[in-house]
Amino acid sequence: MVQKADGMTYAPKGKANHVVRPGEFRFAAMHLDHGHIYGECNGLMEAGGELVAVYDPDPARVAQFIATYPQVKAVDDPRRILEDPSIRLVAAAAVPSERGPLGCRVMEHGKDYFTDKTPFTTLEQLAKAREVVSRTKRRYFVYFSERLHVECAVEAGRLITAGAIGRPVQVLGLGPHRMGDPSKRPKWFFERAKYGGILCDIGSHQIERFLSYTNNTSATIQAAKVANYHHPDFPELEDFGDMTLIGGNGATGYHRVDWLNPRGLGTWGDGRTIILGTEGYIELRKYINVAAERTGDHLFLVNHEGEQHHDLTGKIGFPFFGQLIRDSLDSTETAMTQAHIFTTAELCLLAQQVAVKL
Amino acid sequence: MVQKADGMTYAPKGKANHVVRPGEFRFAAMHLDHGHIYGECNGLMEAGGELVAVYDPDPARVAQFIATYPQVKAVDDPRRILEDPSIRLVAAAAVPSERGPLGCRVMEHGKDYFTDKTPFTTLEQLAKAREVVSRTKRRYFVYFSERLHVECAVEAGRLITAGAIGRPVQVLGLGPHRMGDPSKRPKWFFERAKYGGILCDIGSHQIERFLSYTNNTSATIQAAKVANYHHPDFPELEDFGDMTLIGGNGATGYHRVDWLNPRGLGTWGDGRTIILGTEGYIELRKYINVAAERTGDHLFLVNHEGEQHHDLTGKIGFPFFGQLIRDSLDSTETAMTQAHIFTTAELCLLAQQVAVKL
Repeated sequence: MVQKADGMTYAPKGKANHVVRPGEFRFAAMHLDHGHIYGECNGLMEAGGELVAVYDPDPARVAQFIATYPQVKAVDDPRRILEDPSIRLVAAAAVPSERGPLGCRVMEHGKDYFTDKTPFTTLEQLAKAREVVSRTKRRYFVYFSERLHVECAVEAGRLITAGAIGRPVQVLGLGPHRMGDPSKRPKWFFERAKYGGILCDIGSHQIERFLSYTNNTSATIQAAKVANYHHPDFPELEDFGDMTLIGGNGATGYHRVDWLNPRGLGTWGDGRTIILGTEGYIELRKYINVAAERTGDHLFLVNHEGEQHHDLTGKIGFPFFGQLIRDSLDSTETAMTQAHIFTTAELCLLAQQVAVKL
Repeated sequence: MVQKADGMTYAPKGKANHVVRPGEFRFAAMHLDHGHIYGECNGLMEAGGELVAVYDPDPARVAQFIATYPQVKAVDDPRRILEDPSIRLVAAAAVPSERGPLGCRVMEHGKDYFTDKTPFTTLEQLAKAREVVSRTKRRYFVYFSERLHVECAVEAGRLITAGAIGRPVQVLGLGPHRMGDPSKRPKWFFERAKYGGILCDIGSHQIERFLSYTNNTSATIQAAKVANYHHPDFPELEDFGDMTLIGGNGATGYHRVDWLNPRGLGTWGDGRTIILGTEGYIELRKYINVAAERTGDHLFLVNHEGEQHHDLTGKIGFPFFGQLIRDSLDSTETAMTQAHIFTTAELCLLAQQVAVKL
């Protein structure tokens, strides 16, 4: 069941489609600070991955995790995961500022790493991870859930590649998020040094999608801005951010993220993506079709042939996770290249650096 | 009937709501280069204005105009309009680069002027018009049809003022337009010096709406870009443009315009506006509810109370035109201040100047 009230616990489930035999891809979970760890684990398990161990310093979080995945063994020392040669990959959703260092530690132990977005909060962390990947040949995978774990977003990529809208020239993304009750949020959520800023955090999804849909391997930040419009009690929170990018191939992106989603909406955020091409456009209403349908995964395709509305819930699946597992085992880069991940990370950090504070 | 195929002939009709007695507000039409002249005249006539004369150097355009408004007298010398003391205002839709000079000539003759957008193509024209308005005390009104002549856009302004979404912090506008058959377009449409650039031309609607909805009297252009992605046969055409603004009060705007609307859409452009507030948001699907309803004027309001969809065709009307007539007669500034018009004009010219060419 998809959790509708809160993006932090968004952990979709899809159809199982195993790409490995039992026992072939054993992985563990470490640092469960963000609820996305459940989405990461679900995806890997549906693709045949075997979740065998969990570590987190907080026993309550471990207990909740074990309740969800009873087969998993809790360990009280992270070395029991890091030093277990049968474990191929560590999935994690640490506090954002700790994701880079944790990933480097995992890779230094010869394992691949799969972290929640945003992958880094500083350029230094990014540089270090690039170095460790290069030296160890291990992988730093990132869970950009808003494209990889949303069926209409997966289908949009397929349609673009198939030429349904001609050459994509702009990706416009809106990522409103619900704040909910701030007292239910962890402390780090409001600490700038820990979450990295709104463009670095939830903006990372946007940049990843822009690069992916426009097939760009590079881009520059033309402009960015951040604000705290409505949360004076949390001075380090940015509740609004936007940025516009110019891709190396001439396509552009505009991306707006915020924590202003009103309580009356039937889900945690009316996330939209519009991909404009020379021969048509695609609009994604990802989590709701506002005032019409409570379900998500609505894809609207308009091109020279006409207007179409596709309701894609349950119809597309999530090929990313199986591809990730195969990439890990086969040394391929089908799911996502390391260059793509690091370019995304760099751009969201640069956007945050140049952002005008309103 | 609203023309659905082509934005250039968009000339809505509303309910008659006279603000003057017969004969009290006589006006004429001059220079019919853009089809918006029909929307301008419809609006003024529905508010009680009396369309008495028309001048255009092209007899075919005059014949078409007379066929639409049989009561109107065609004159073959513009002085017969300019020097007629019974005519209070001249409505016009000249080639964009001629709109400013024509307006100054009209005002120098003691009449108010009502031009299609965009009001100017150079900052020099703008400076001159400011000077003439200041000296003659006449008015330079502009037909920003995408807010003033769209019922859902009028209602959005009312809802914002009533506090339905809290403090408005961002206006996001998408203005895709259909090119249609280029051979049916006038030559000036493809000449940069005459149409002024895409941000100056159709972008002017966007800036006007941003200033209006956010209640800003000033703004800066943070970034802008223009491109010709898909029309190599027309090297001076810009078929894509975008810009992001920072208002004096801290609210921001992002605006994208293009000539890439695919043929399969049921209308000339899937124009959208999203106004994000601290307590909710409004989305306008102005000319179509894509793949759902062929009609326009759809307003979606989401705030803490819930989600609403209002179909506003025929329900709101167009108060601007009656206000314009009263402003002209009473020396008020209810419809729109001259400062607002000139600030809009200046910003769209500046956006065009700073735009990065992709």
